[in-house]
Amino acid sequence: MDSPVTAAVLAAARAAKDAQPVLARLHRGTKDQLLLAMADALVERTSQIVDANARDLAAADASGIAPGLRDRLALDPERVAKIAQQLRDAAALPDPVGEVLRGSVLDNGLELREVRVPMGVVGMVYEARPNVTVDAAGLALKAGSAVVLRGGSAALHSNTALIAVLRAVLAAHDLPSDLIVGIDEHGREGVDALMRARGLVDVLIPRGGAGLIRRVVENSQVPVIETGTGKTHVFLDASADLAQAVDIVVNAKTQRVGVCNALETLLVHRDVAAEALPRVAAPLAEAGVRLHADERAAALLPSGPEVVPATDEDWDTEYLALELAVAVVDDLDAALVHIRAHSTGHTESILTRDVVAQQRFLAEVDSAVVMANASTRFSDGGEFGFGAEIGISTQKLHARGPMGLRELTSAKWLVVGQGHVRP
Amino acid sequence: MDSPVTAAVLAAARAAKDAQPVLARLHRGTKDQLLLAMADALVERTSQIVDANARDLAAADASGIAPGLRDRLALDPERVAKIAQQLRDAAALPDPVGEVLRGSVLDNGLELREVRVPMGVVGMVYEARPNVTVDAAGLALKAGSAVVLRGGSAALHSNTALIAVLRAVLAAHDLPSDLIVGIDEHGREGVDALMRARGLVDVLIPRGGAGLIRRVVENSQVPVIETGTGKTHVFLDASADLAQAVDIVVNAKTQRVGVCNALETLLVHRDVAAEALPRVAAPLAEAGVRLHADERAAALLPSGPEVVPATDEDWDTEYLALELAVAVVDDLDAALVHIRAHSTGHTESILTRDVVAQQRFLAEVDSAVVMANASTRFSDGGEFGFGAEIGISTQKLHARGPMGLRELTSAKWLVVGQGHVRP
Repeated sequence: MDSPVTAAVLAAARAAKDAQPVLARLHRGTKDQLLLAMADALVERTSQIVDANARDLAAADASGIAPGLRDRLALDPERVAKIAQQLRDAAALPDPVGEVLRGSVLDNGLELREVRVPMGVVGMVYEARPNVTVDAAGLALKAGSAVVLRGGSAALHSNTALIAVLRAVLAAHDLPSDLIVGIDEHGREGVDALMRARGLVDVLIPRGGAGLIRRVVENSQVPVIETGTGKTHVFLDASADLAQAVDIVVNAKTQRVGVCNALETLLVHRDVAAEALPRVAAPLAEAGVRLHADERAAALLPSGPEVVPATDEDWDTEYLALELAVAVVDDLDAALVHIRAHSTGHTESILTRDVVAQQRFLAEVDSAVVMANASTRFSDGGEFGFGAEIGISTQKLHARGPMGLRELTSAKWLVVGQGHVRP
Repeated sequence: MDSPVTAAVLAAARAAKDAQPVLARLHRGTKDQLLLAMADALVERTSQIVDANARDLAAADASGIAPGLRDRLALDPERVAKIAQQLRDAAALPDPVGEVLRGSVLDNGLELREVRVPMGVVGMVYEARPNVTVDAAGLALKAGSAVVLRGGSAALHSNTALIAVLRAVLAAHDLPSDLIVGIDEHGREGVDALMRARGLVDVLIPRGGAGLIRRVVENSQVPVIETGTGKTHVFLDASADLAQAVDIVVNAKTQRVGVCNALETLLVHRDVAAEALPRVAAPLAEAGVRLHADERAAALLPSGPEVVPATDEDWDTEYLALELAVAVVDDLDAALVHIRAHSTGHTESILTRDVVAQQRFLAEVDSAVVMANASTRFSDGGEFGFGAEIGISTQKLHARGPMGLRELTSAKWLVVGQGHVRP
């Protein structure tokens, strides 16, 4: 027997599945009108949303929430307007549904087409960020999928208010409001139930910390797209343009710190280490970055509080902070071995003027995004021109790297005959 | 602590993972030479392979194996030659690796390319069919991936002999033999270990009966591509060309019976049921097909042993036998509702001369392959022109429908800058 929570979550997922075919048949114009109406409704109901958020914030303050998490949770009229703008941006994107991916006429005259279709029901599990609630719902809707949303319980009131606004717009357009369902009130047990909703939910996308992602990946019976963890590397080759290299390393590490495409390990070719390391270290120290240096790197760096000895853990730590692991390597091969051992498969970049080194690095590094002479911070759906980003996939199945609307879709084959039977 | 079996399987998977980068860098010519050398080696060692198979057959006979399973297990020189030919066929296929899937220059001058790359390590779990061992290894190799093979324990000696031949060819070409590893000797516990090899195995593909597939889907932490179960439907519309319809239904049901794209449920529009049902039933009866008819269909069919009343289970049973569920439905909408409730999402076909009905059926049926006026037996990678088929995916993630070499690959993004930093 299912527990009451499991039964409720499965019922919600089934309601989403039953509602979805209507959405799958809507054309782009109608979907875009819906998104714009949702944006307007969110702005109209700003005070209601901010009030609900105030309840979440009060509870969070009482439990002593960390300032960073509080900031991600907090809403004010300006942020609600920004959230509404996300929906308008989604409306401006091309509709991925209906694209013909392949097609031919077979020798026997059968007409064959592979066409892009909605995924069906997308499950999103994320942490207490109310903007993700609206963003995920809007993108799923644009891609023709119903969505089951599970945000962190710290955002329960905010998410409930936001989802209520979106569902009211669906109902006002004579569409089933179960195209967007929230299951926040069921807590962690609700996530467990969602992970067992195989046949009802077509894909589960966890967004958030490593613990959340691991839990979903390891326990879900629903297919999962793993997102996120980025232990990203830059290899500063012997032939690198050092002025450029300094700019790129500083940018990759400090332009935004708490994100998965920020730089976490710098590998420096031994032939340039003596010159390059001090030049890189100065602006990093100025920006408040602490270096975790291996012995060879430490020997070339000024001693001081901003340089500490690296431990074994440093090579596998995603700091998401003003910390950077630094090692000197013998050559490109050694850099490739290090990356192969420690990368999470997110993003790596080589800084070089050598075409052979660049070609080998691009070919041999097995990560979602492999770069040359560019900051790892460009590993981003917005920067890639996707217009929206659902997350960055670090697995090899279905989607790899930044995921846009296309990655939220599936495909099916259409076969048209004229009485064809198989001989 | 891992059990000895788990440790052995994880070590095998790690060996495959460590070997794979060498394969990823081989160009097509080298890979094709390898496949041809493997084909030659299999033919050369036919007697050794057949001897090993005889040991499996003796054990199977002693345990009273079913004739169908015994036939799938048995090898003779002719079958070994056929297995070798599969490798030659794989050599003739284009190399999927390296294809540029998308590419552009971003506004800031960054060059962006999405390229097709090998999956990495592919795990195959299948039943006692030695031909699958060679087929899976050959296709994985052609697609640049290492492969971990787990065939049924009934084929242990056959698979061991086949894998030994393939590994010897790898070694003779100075390639790591761990590009192809078998874990048959570890039994079911080996499958459990393989399902936990996340980070070592990139995708697990179960091929076989519904029980095997369900077990892998429900328990694997490694991403899975679900293959197989086909509760396929044909809807015979009021406007169908009845002569064509009879041919298609008979072909779909009887051309080959024990396969996932064989017809399992026939839905007939009530306006033509009185005429169509007896016309379809006659040749089906002649072919030995028993009909499981709902009340309305039964009333229009000749009574006799070849027509039995349908039970609730019939609408969800994949017979893989000379059995067919038959129901009369009021109209296209009723057919769509029935299919939505009972399809496994494999293949459905409408027989119609009405463009609106055809268009609606193709658009609204949410299955991997949706057909009009063609036998469901065309739902097949070979028929689609893929040259090879790894299986038929019934999930929506990554691959849907017949899977060829392309579906065994992943992609990565290459980003080339000239000192780009993010503003």
